[in-house]
Amino acid sequence: MSKYRIGLFGFGCVGQGLYETLQRNNQIDAEVVKICVKDSTKKRPIADDIFVYSADQILEDDTIDLVVELIDDAATAFTIVSESLSKRKRVVSANKKMVAEKLGELIQLQKEHNTPLLYEGAVCGSIPIIKTLDEYYSLEKVNEIKGIFNGSTNYILTKVIEESKSYQDALKAAQDNGFAETDPVLDVEGYDPKYKLAIVLQHTFGLQVHPDDIFNQGIQSITQADIQFAAERDLKIKLLSRASRYGDKVTGFVAPHFVSKESPLFHVENEYNAALIEGEFADEQVLIGKGAGKLPTGLAVLSDVAAITRGYHYDYPNKSDKSTFITSEEEVYVSFENGEVIDFGLFNTISEKYIGQKSGYVIGEIKLDKLKRLIKEKNVNAIFTSGAEEEIEVHRLSYSYA
Amino acid sequence: MSKYRIGLFGFGCVGQGLYETLQRNNQIDAEVVKICVKDSTKKRPIADDIFVYSADQILEDDTIDLVVELIDDAATAFTIVSESLSKRKRVVSANKKMVAEKLGELIQLQKEHNTPLLYEGAVCGSIPIIKTLDEYYSLEKVNEIKGIFNGSTNYILTKVIEESKSYQDALKAAQDNGFAETDPVLDVEGYDPKYKLAIVLQHTFGLQVHPDDIFNQGIQSITQADIQFAAERDLKIKLLSRASRYGDKVTGFVAPHFVSKESPLFHVENEYNAALIEGEFADEQVLIGKGAGKLPTGLAVLSDVAAITRGYHYDYPNKSDKSTFITSEEEVYVSFENGEVIDFGLFNTISEKYIGQKSGYVIGEIKLDKLKRLIKEKNVNAIFTSGAEEEIEVHRLSYSYA
Repeated sequence: MSKYRIGLFGFGCVGQGLYETLQRNNQIDAEVVKICVKDSTKKRPIADDIFVYSADQILEDDTIDLVVELIDDAATAFTIVSESLSKRKRVVSANKKMVAEKLGELIQLQKEHNTPLLYEGAVCGSIPIIKTLDEYYSLEKVNEIKGIFNGSTNYILTKVIEESKSYQDALKAAQDNGFAETDPVLDVEGYDPKYKLAIVLQHTFGLQVHPDDIFNQGIQSITQADIQFAAERDLKIKLLSRASRYGDKVTGFVAPHFVSKESPLFHVENEYNAALIEGEFADEQVLIGKGAGKLPTGLAVLSDVAAITRGYHYDYPNKSDKSTFITSEEEVYVSFENGEVIDFGLFNTISEKYIGQKSGYVIGEIKLDKLKRLIKEKNVNAIFTSGAEEEIEVHRLSYSYA
Repeated sequence: MSKYRIGLFGFGCVGQGLYETLQRNNQIDAEVVKICVKDSTKKRPIADDIFVYSADQILEDDTIDLVVELIDDAATAFTIVSESLSKRKRVVSANKKMVAEKLGELIQLQKEHNTPLLYEGAVCGSIPIIKTLDEYYSLEKVNEIKGIFNGSTNYILTKVIEESKSYQDALKAAQDNGFAETDPVLDVEGYDPKYKLAIVLQHTFGLQVHPDDIFNQGIQSITQADIQFAAERDLKIKLLSRASRYGDKVTGFVAPHFVSKESPLFHVENEYNAALIEGEFADEQVLIGKGAGKLPTGLAVLSDVAAITRGYHYDYPNKSDKSTFITSEEEVYVSFENGEVIDFGLFNTISEKYIGQKSGYVIGEIKLDKLKRLIKEKNVNAIFTSGAEEEIEVHRLSYSYA
């Protein structure tokens, strides 16, 4: 007899993978007994009698002690997860949007009902980032955490920049390979990695920051001129999620970054994700793994199920203490078609400005709320320079003295 | 009142770091109450009354429930650890030689006395490799695990190859920085990474392999000609620990390898360690972090202490089933001064042979026991080609057609 009886919500790629693996695996003391799906007319790959079509058939079933929530819709997912916790059913979820937006309430519910919720599968697929942050980085202060938190856009950037494919072909290939979200805007405009960053902000700095309060710029506006700018300086463009601590101030944002070849992130290609954690004792630590696709995410969910059977729960050991989340000023490269429409006064400092016939760019320090306004109102793209200043500077000097 | 009262053996770098951190940290429910050291005349940086000079003062103290063993000598360490477990004291150790050589007995002792022993600090410093193998890779089959498991030699190789320093200067710098073992032979000849590989073989494949049964070749015989061979082919030389599964056969060894720039290991420099795990679901996962030095190792020990207070113990979930450890045949580059003394018949196949006036090399497939004999009897160096075959082949072709 299995100890844990699982009620599964959703039977897409990851759900099917989980079901199959648990069927075959004899190490995890758990089995799926009911699967709740929406569409009762759809043909399913396994026998019908396991399917139910109303959430209550799982939520009201006292013999089910573990709910695995793998549906797309964040609002419904939150109802399922919060009701499950209220009924003291343990929960595993991979819904990053839901977890990111409702993290405060979810922590409260876990505490109130003394029932665990795990969501390693929501952040960076197969990389055990949440556990590592909780278990290692509760013991030392983190100065910075940054990484490639979205496999789909990294795949697209690799194909477009390294392999000179068209953006549309690259996006289609990402979708065909199952790396992309159902709505590609979530990936391409940087929302998906922002949800993950919000979760990481909690587990790194103890800060609850609503995703709406985090700056995000995606890869949708990168131009051929931007790609050329990077190539000339031996840089790559990577969509990074990044959070830094300056004393008791913490910043965080998602944006394309120039990355130099000295960075471990330079070499992370295709659907791989990576997290680079800079701590006080361990210095730089890098975790790289597949961040998208059925099996890597399935493995993360499976590891959460296994962890639940071992009694694991998040302690949320990293506390915010007095730190606050602020809107920072960053050095940014902003490219545009028409320099005349840009209000350069928005920049605090400008280190380089180029205005050509068809396009131009400016590099300077700007507060993120002003940058957000600039991006919204004008047809510009922004790429953060952090970590690549030296390559840009060297190129600038060689150009000046040419 | 602290829940866990720690008896600490050894008060070197890592021990002092642990003591200080626990003094300041209020998140871990543990405090050091006694420290056992050998030399009663040595001046200590903290008040004398915490020191004891006989192991029994800790082992016979029923109020001590956690022993942290951080001494150099493997035989004494085993006595301390096994007696502690017998008295149902939980144990944290960072002694890789002791753990590697006695793993079977240590697993038995933990089971018999239902008392945990953790040793994350023994393998790859700040990289949480043991926990990752237990928790993620018990859920899927690992095909290969390889990595840079020794920070000292990676530091030396970086300085010698990348920065053209002399071997002696590089070794001295490694020692000055606290990366090297007390006896540098353990690092330089590949024993230290072999102990770690033996521990990893248990946690990956469930195999108990005595370090004596694992082939190891260090970096001590790398010549200028070898470095030049690598540089001409855009390769680096890295000392890798490597274990692979072929059905129910598992191989494992420590040796210098040619690494091509497509490998994530190519970019891992200085005292950094890395582990690359290739699994069936998650595909390739890479963990990179500082593998040597006081603080990274201290952090790993501290995380074990914290894990003990949370009730964590190793389950040894990866079972060997029917797999056996075998001596494999590998493709190896062997360089020599005098080709006349080499018995080329030891190789099963030879793909390239070069004999010059002062030096030469042969590339071919050879069984590791024969290679061991060749290294022992003749003045040769061996570098494994795995993963770099293509670069060698391309160079060979361009040379042939030149």
